[in-house]
Amino acid sequence: MLSQKIQKHLKQLQQKKFRKEFEEFIVEGVKGVEEGLNSDADVALLVVEGNRRDENDIAELITLAEKSEIPVEFCGRKDVDDIKTTDTFPGVLAVIGQEQLDLEDVVEGPIICLDEVKDPGNLGTIIRTADWFGIKNIVLSEKCVDVYNPKVVRSTMGSIFHVNILRSENISKTLERLKKEFEYEVNALDMEGKDITKLKPKNKAVYLFGSESHGVSDALEELIDNRYTISGSGDAESLNLAISAGILMSRLSS
Amino acid sequence: MLSQKIQKHLKQLQQKKFRKEFEEFIVEGVKGVEEGLNSDADVALLVVEGNRRDENDIAELITLAEKSEIPVEFCGRKDVDDIKTTDTFPGVLAVIGQEQLDLEDVVEGPIICLDEVKDPGNLGTIIRTADWFGIKNIVLSEKCVDVYNPKVVRSTMGSIFHVNILRSENISKTLERLKKEFEYEVNALDMEGKDITKLKPKNKAVYLFGSESHGVSDALEELIDNRYTISGSGDAESLNLAISAGILMSRLSS
Repeated sequence: MLSQKIQKHLKQLQQKKFRKEFEEFIVEGVKGVEEGLNSDADVALLVVEGNRRDENDIAELITLAEKSEIPVEFCGRKDVDDIKTTDTFPGVLAVIGQEQLDLEDVVEGPIICLDEVKDPGNLGTIIRTADWFGIKNIVLSEKCVDVYNPKVVRSTMGSIFHVNILRSENISKTLERLKKEFEYEVNALDMEGKDITKLKPKNKAVYLFGSESHGVSDALEELIDNRYTISGSGDAESLNLAISAGILMSRLSS
Repeated sequence: MLSQKIQKHLKQLQQKKFRKEFEEFIVEGVKGVEEGLNSDADVALLVVEGNRRDENDIAELITLAEKSEIPVEFCGRKDVDDIKTTDTFPGVLAVIGQEQLDLEDVVEGPIICLDEVKDPGNLGTIIRTADWFGIKNIVLSEKCVDVYNPKVVRSTMGSIFHVNILRSENISKTLERLKKEFEYEVNALDMEGKDITKLKPKNKAVYLFGSESHGVSDALEELIDNRYTISGSGDAESLNLAISAGILMSRLSS
């Protein structure tokens, strides 16, 4: 059984305002928890469903946590319904400290910058794809969905621990600083640019994606140095944002 | 108010077995319904939320339906809760006849073949992406999620009406026929192939994707002519299936 205090804390972390207040988030499932424990992340607590503690992969996580002196709590069936963020609780979760990055932490190599990604699955998939292609830096504007939303965390499949993710509070200012202080150029992906096959990967380049429906917001227009387009010859009105980002990232790494 | 008969029918169409029995499916929302009405699809019924009938885009759909002598029914607020497949009913839906294709209908140009896509959002996104790149043919194995599942339909954003989608009942046999009768070659995307940058687009080519976690099933191994890999230099274990398919399709069209 979990104490009431822990139970309350876990429930609170399902809401963005409490995640912000406590600077923590939850990762659920063996794969995500394992990546968290093996990363530099600050793991505050491991919670295991009591009757699954002897399953091999979960037992290994307990050992790993204990080695690092991370507290392990066991919960009953009843607790699970209160704390789970998925339909089926995968037997294990961890409470992890949010990483607070500065601009200086994301200026080695290209940067994927997302101006307005609202769909949690899309954001998670973009992080996972960046991790696949070895792209280390992602900058999120203030209009993006919270990167510590459980659905985002889940769809990163553990990659949230491998990529530097800066949450900007003023994306215009962040892009200005990247240009002036760090000599980055800003490349926007939109409908009226050069064909993406013409893109030459650069280290000091930001790749800026707007919202799926409205494109890059007007406030950022003047900061754009180049525009690229993923041309299509079919009838769809647009590409899914994560697909666009995936295609761009594959071009950067080939 | 909807008649009880129509209400029951709409509810039934939320289940795969009834969609199969009636050979129909539901598309919700202005964009999807519009694409359906403007396509060759057989639209059986338009259902409009009564108090939204005067909204411009919905009024246009009603005119469009009436021109084609498609019956239009109006529903009340209460009906909506029973028939909607999304949290917020977008004001309009259409009942559409399922297209029954033969192999002969998908043998012009390259074919995307999905052996095991379970996630509805992934399948919908793949269909939308194919439509963006002008790829006309998709073959689904018997292990895939139902293409007429409401979540799949929604995430195609209307592209379900632009792409030829063959639902195979025996994917091994379908691939064999494509090879023998139609001279297609089978290219599998997996972890141990040539780098995808080496791929030369061909018209008579199947691009075969296995499941995200297990790859292409053993039963199909002997049918594979070439293997390609989307190489990554990062730490993620795998790419999302829709992202892999998107990257492949962008290579086919560039």
